[in-house]
Amino acid sequence: MREVVVVGVGSTVFGKFPERRPDELGAEAVRRAMDDAGAEPEDIQFAYSANLYGGMVIGQAILRECRITNLEITNVENACAGGATAFRKAWYDIGSGLYDIGLAVGVESITTSSIVGKLIPPAKGDLAGELGMNMVGRWAMAQRRYMEENGVSLQQIAKVAVKNRRNGCLNPYSQYQKEYTIDEVVNSRMICDPITLLQCCPNSDGGAAAILCSADLAPKFKRKPVKVIASVVKSGDYLYRSRSIGFSEMTARSVKEAYEMAGLGPEDIDVCELHDPFSYTELAHYEELGFAKPGEGVRLIEEGVTQIGGKLPVNPSGGLESKGHPVSATGVAQIAELVWQLRGEAGKRQAGNPKVGLAHVLGGEVTELESGACSIHILGR
Amino acid sequence: MREVVVVGVGSTVFGKFPERRPDELGAEAVRRAMDDAGAEPEDIQFAYSANLYGGMVIGQAILRECRITNLEITNVENACAGGATAFRKAWYDIGSGLYDIGLAVGVESITTSSIVGKLIPPAKGDLAGELGMNMVGRWAMAQRRYMEENGVSLQQIAKVAVKNRRNGCLNPYSQYQKEYTIDEVVNSRMICDPITLLQCCPNSDGGAAAILCSADLAPKFKRKPVKVIASVVKSGDYLYRSRSIGFSEMTARSVKEAYEMAGLGPEDIDVCELHDPFSYTELAHYEELGFAKPGEGVRLIEEGVTQIGGKLPVNPSGGLESKGHPVSATGVAQIAELVWQLRGEAGKRQAGNPKVGLAHVLGGEVTELESGACSIHILGR
Repeated sequence: MREVVVVGVGSTVFGKFPERRPDELGAEAVRRAMDDAGAEPEDIQFAYSANLYGGMVIGQAILRECRITNLEITNVENACAGGATAFRKAWYDIGSGLYDIGLAVGVESITTSSIVGKLIPPAKGDLAGELGMNMVGRWAMAQRRYMEENGVSLQQIAKVAVKNRRNGCLNPYSQYQKEYTIDEVVNSRMICDPITLLQCCPNSDGGAAAILCSADLAPKFKRKPVKVIASVVKSGDYLYRSRSIGFSEMTARSVKEAYEMAGLGPEDIDVCELHDPFSYTELAHYEELGFAKPGEGVRLIEEGVTQIGGKLPVNPSGGLESKGHPVSATGVAQIAELVWQLRGEAGKRQAGNPKVGLAHVLGGEVTELESGACSIHILGR
Repeated sequence: MREVVVVGVGSTVFGKFPERRPDELGAEAVRRAMDDAGAEPEDIQFAYSANLYGGMVIGQAILRECRITNLEITNVENACAGGATAFRKAWYDIGSGLYDIGLAVGVESITTSSIVGKLIPPAKGDLAGELGMNMVGRWAMAQRRYMEENGVSLQQIAKVAVKNRRNGCLNPYSQYQKEYTIDEVVNSRMICDPITLLQCCPNSDGGAAAILCSADLAPKFKRKPVKVIASVVKSGDYLYRSRSIGFSEMTARSVKEAYEMAGLGPEDIDVCELHDPFSYTELAHYEELGFAKPGEGVRLIEEGVTQIGGKLPVNPSGGLESKGHPVSATGVAQIAELVWQLRGEAGKRQAGNPKVGLAHVLGGEVTELESGACSIHILGR
């Protein structure tokens, strides 16, 4: 494998855009990434596009709008890890020498999809689904278990929401830009006990893109390159078949492989974007990613380690909770945030002077029949 | 790139199975391919799964049913070319040395999807769609143009349907096993002038899978390996922006690259599975694939060249028209058919003693906004 670098990233603002097709959102993200890199359509040799709800060959539509055609385009889907999967595939196709320059784009438009406002019916054979179990129900059970096992209070969990929503206020791409207190989080509308509204990520529309190339071609582009040091995508069961429903074995396995690939450990990570569809998950992921010992994730939020200005800022973008979670865009948006952070261009939310960043995203297992996907990327300058 | 071989293939019967989930169909195909190869779950290091309408992380669900988990699984989508895209990705990941043994599976269940019996509404901005244009409408215009430009009659086009439906009668995996006369094809129910019902492929459910490995590992498996000689997936506009709406520039470009990769030409192809969603397309593809000069595709069907027993049997499986067209399964099913043909195991539909086979599939461009995908694979023994 030769070294692969990111030379441009771009994102739409995340939010609810009922007037914008998913391909339009994706095309905006691609154009922003192309502008960032100083790349021309003819530079792009191949592309991966991630989308879940938009229908077929969205990637081709996105790239046609950007006047990029007649090349190999692959649409990928791995639930919330779809964008990260697209990025990994682009990384590998360059690293292995198939292509020299390409792009990964992730996009989702929940608002214009056919699922908006509807319950997704359980698949035949999905016993838990047929009994009424849905995504927030599963996570509420996991959160309850995590709180019980580790002696963590709802007030402590709410501190994650407070931190991430405060970070979102500093991010012009963030869907929400409003601060909340612990009490407001705890006392917001109950969704599924113990998960209240302000512990949840929203439905979101948006797109994000990255331009990658082999390290030797980086001087062709105008931005300082950011290196891809490790890339992992793994499947596996999560929640249900873990040693505890509150612990993601898949994350622990995936990050172990990523650290080995990078020759680094958790102590080397300076900034992190991780999967926080619900506030408590951030605490559990601290532990799975090796940032804290089992059961001690809450200390990082209590001690301010993971806030901007702390030793290891986590989700400086606002995370899924505040920045928003356009499913297949999230994995690429995390990469974009790390690139901005590593370049020192994150503005008011700049998390110090980081040298190494880690992105983590989980996908899948809405129904009993599925197993999920996990992705870890480590970037460095 | 090191040499990659197919050591096992499997398929479900194609048809309409309202009682079977897409992951069940996919798992049956994978188990059949595993049995064919003599492979065990622990042999599989990674997988690609292609699906369009089944929802998220179908690949993970399929493999979990086969007791294959904790590995890298990527769900891909490229409309009708999705299965071929999954196969290409698996080929590349082995050829480039990332993995040694893996699988590609394609599956579709139209019957259980939310689209069955519904019109897919046009996307905002799809002017032609909003005016009532749909897939068969587009192809009807293309067919009309092709007939006009090349002086081809509907009776001649019907001979493709007669051939492929006769072939389907010889294939136990085929959705339809009924012979028709030219008159029956021409006089069947009008769908969109000049396309009658028996010139159309059906809606289908089904799955197909292939096990691939590096050539040096082939002796580990029980079946004689079939080599992957060329693999191409390209995007591009088709129909609309071609020199004629009846000609697929994307196919012509893709097959040129595949022939160069293989060091072969159209004269070297002994058997072919190609994309025949409507009968006339087979004639156009003869020309685009180099089997006939422009405008002379009809001679191959008139002279019996492409029937079983002819010099170049095309769609001995029955093709999309008779075997059926479970969208994302088709590309892998074509590979399975070629493997059976190259091994001499195609039973009553065995197309002589072929040494080299070619698979061709097109996907996309239902709406004005999309561009399509084309895949070519060349296999040999």
